[in-house]
Amino acid sequence: MSRHLRILVIHPPAESEASLRAHALHAGLKEAGYQIIASLPADLHLPEQIARLQPDMIIIDAESDARDVLEHIVLATRNERRPIVMFTEDEDTCAMEAALEAGVSAYIVAGLQAERIKPVLNVALARFRHEQKLREELESTRHKLAERKVIDRAKGLLMLRHGLSEDQAYQKLRTLAMNKNLKLAEVAQRILDVEDLLG
Amino acid sequence: MSRHLRILVIHPPAESEASLRAHALHAGLKEAGYQIIASLPADLHLPEQIARLQPDMIIIDAESDARDVLEHIVLATRNERRPIVMFTEDEDTCAMEAALEAGVSAYIVAGLQAERIKPVLNVALARFRHEQKLREELESTRHKLAERKVIDRAKGLLMLRHGLSEDQAYQKLRTLAMNKNLKLAEVAQRILDVEDLLG
Repeated sequence: MSRHLRILVIHPPAESEASLRAHALHAGLKEAGYQIIASLPADLHLPEQIARLQPDMIIIDAESDARDVLEHIVLATRNERRPIVMFTEDEDTCAMEAALEAGVSAYIVAGLQAERIKPVLNVALARFRHEQKLREELESTRHKLAERKVIDRAKGLLMLRHGLSEDQAYQKLRTLAMNKNLKLAEVAQRILDVEDLLG
Repeated sequence: MSRHLRILVIHPPAESEASLRAHALHAGLKEAGYQIIASLPADLHLPEQIARLQPDMIIIDAESDARDVLEHIVLATRNERRPIVMFTEDEDTCAMEAALEAGVSAYIVAGLQAERIKPVLNVALARFRHEQKLREELESTRHKLAERKVIDRAKGLLMLRHGLSEDQAYQKLRTLAMNKNLKLAEVAQRILDVEDLLG
């Protein structure tokens, strides 16, 4: 599977593609059977380029300070996360933490040797999936909690406004949801919205 | 800070500590200013050893298949997570995924060179903190959701048993919590426990 990964390489702005580093990276990727679909600098066009190219993985070749590069990439992958691998010479711990915070799946200092690229990319992929699972679990738990709060508030409102028991209020919400073909939380939100509107 | 990290090294069972690999690892750790507090094989004594030594980080030097080693370490760090770094020659993707699932912060294939050890350990630390934050957030969101469910169930029970309104039931819970110096969710849980007991 990993054999057919389509990879976007982000190279340092000032560096020519013929540099030694770039050469090692490209050679390693090809040797491992990956497909480099583009090699681009990190600039304002990056978000639209990523949206157009839809790479399976983004590799950042950042010799030194990559704060600007990271910012561009965070913006470009905010709505659709992708595995990001960063090769750098920057040992600064703050830069490291910023990169991980930004969603970088692998941060490799001084490790750009052609023969190591394949295992590094495989670990990055596994890491990305692992963290996505954790994120999705967090997202879904948060969502459930938010839904529950909305439903509780709507129930309370119905009890207050219409003198219903809790059970009656709940049944009313259920009936409304079924009739309108909506989720319970959606009906509840609408009831709260109307209340807000009417003050 | 990382200068004074106290490190526990787990070495392969069959390997002598004088091997080339072990030598490179120990040299790299010392050079980077880390303190190796012990070098142990992964066996059934590991949990109690870890509890006794309280290392800041665990480094697994696993030349090949490390499934057994991982199992021991997962058991030993289940209640108190620690940054775990794994140096291996195993490129197998399943082994990789098992390691990440088990909480390994850095999985490095064929990367045991003395000069790379320090940045690798720093990345592992940052990664560990990052994932801990995500885990803690998930844990706390789950906890809030569970508390809310318990409180709602207890409220419903009070309403049913004592003919209270929702608001009255809630006030009763609050009063009980204040009088007993407990959290709302704790009082709610006790009410449910008693109900279960009485059937």
